Amino acid sequence: MRTFKITVAYDGTDFAGWQIQPRRTTVQGMLERALVKLTGERVAVTGSGRTDSGVHALAQVASFQTPHWRATAADLVKAMNVNLPPTIVVLDCVDAPDSFHAIADAQGKRYRYQLQLGGIRNAFDHRFRWQVHGDTDVAAIESACEHFLGKHDFASFQASRSPRKTTVRTIRACELIRESSSPIDGERISIEVEADGFLYNMVRNIVGTLVEIGKGKHSPSWITEVIAMVNRDAAGPTAPPHGLFLKQVHYLPF
Amino acid sequence: MRTFKITVAYDGTDFAGWQIQPRRTTVQGMLERALVKLTGERVAVTGSGRTDSGVHALAQVASFQTPHWRATAADLVKAMNVNLPPTIVVLDCVDAPDSFHAIADAQGKRYRYQLQLGGIRNAFDHRFRWQVHGDTDVAAIESACEHFLGKHDFASFQASRSPRKTTVRTIRACELIRESSSPIDGERISIEVEADGFLYNMVRNIVGTLVEIGKGKHSPSWITEVIAMVNRDAAGPTAPPHGLFLKQVHYLPF
Repeated sequence: MRTFKITVAYDGTDFAGWQIQPRRTTVQGMLERALVKLTGERVAVTGSGRTDSGVHALAQVASFQTPHWRATAADLVKAMNVNLPPTIVVLDCVDAPDSFHAIADAQGKRYRYQLQLGGIRNAFDHRFRWQVHGDTDVAAIESACEHFLGKHDFASFQASRSPRKTTVRTIRACELIRESSSPIDGERISIEVEADGFLYNMVRNIVGTLVEIGKGKHSPSWITEVIAMVNRDAAGPTAPPHGLFLKQVHYLPF
Repeated sequence: MRTFKITVAYDGTDFAGWQIQPRRTTVQGMLERALVKLTGERVAVTGSGRTDSGVHALAQVASFQTPHWRATAADLVKAMNVNLPPTIVVLDCVDAPDSFHAIADAQGKRYRYQLQLGGIRNAFDHRFRWQVHGDTDVAAIESACEHFLGKHDFASFQASRSPRKTTVRTIRACELIRESSSPIDGERISIEVEADGFLYNMVRNIVGTLVEIGKGKHSPSWITEVIAMVNRDAAGPTAPPHGLFLKQVHYLPF
């Protein structure tokens, strides 16, 4: 038996999310279909976590085991990419210890959420960026970001339908990146959040809440109050999926 | 009667090119459909030139006339964008003199062609960039670009099926732009060509020929020979449409 760790990028637009579902096209499903072709057996692929329908990944990590691949891990990258649609790409594949498990071993993750504030709809990257109309105060959003840092109970930012055992997480970074600004393209920013783990919809709820602050509905320090409420109703709305990218999953070296 | 000059961006992936055709979805067709809704009459939209199926535009220019728009040109931008698919966006609209004509008045154009040399297929911009596999000598391509400059008979770079009265054109700029380079994303370059006018498939034939030089099949100065042959068979193959963008159309100020 061989254990592989793969890194996968995907444009989530046309997939019903990561996780295999009957009669739906999913990223996990496409990866497993490619592996059936290459190994002749059903291989279960374990992702570091699910991504929702429409959410993208710059570097999702997954693991799987098979005794039926005799060539190198680098050859497996090429072979898988030939058997995947253009919107799913295996970026890297390495042999991993048999104990490696993409979920259990993840030490943390970083997500990126892309926004266009104002400007005119973009014909080329509307799939990958949430356009927020009207004036938005970027400095207020930037100032609000720092209130997320540290170890908190983030229950206010968890989708109500998906409770976890504990809703305490440590946010290690919450950064606003100014990408570009022009009258036609609007102000293009990204918000990147890094944590030891994320609750369901956590980044999209953080971004939706930050945009409320950018719209002047609340001051930046409102974040502290929302966290303290430990109640999903306290935070802002959920940002749409198409601006979200899973950017990095952290593991200890083998 | 009012005459308008509009600037339009589009992702050409899902269109059968610019020009209206029966039972095909085209960019011109979508613009005219939007104008029927807004003016209540059929309005003929004249583009600065056709783009082929799969070719994109950062700033195509078109003109049309209608007596049935009472609001400002800026309002027409918003109204058209509401009535267009997300992959076609009107960036600008201004009132123009009645004599303005998007084809007849064009003084020149600039095209951009995007390439990825080597690396792994990109899940996000494969629609907008031609991936060329294996090693490619970028310095050789850059050196070859300068041989296109000036006034020449470019018959060698014209699609054979579409002859024009004269195949003499003046190329004012032919530039290689190095965008980025990494093992996964490959070397990302663009080739921009500016001329007083273009023959059918001219940029795609230029790029296909430059890639032959990048592959070491010919030296950079081969371009001079190919131009002198005045024969399509002398040049390299036609690069695929999806890397090509109409970037700018030049007009004199009104």
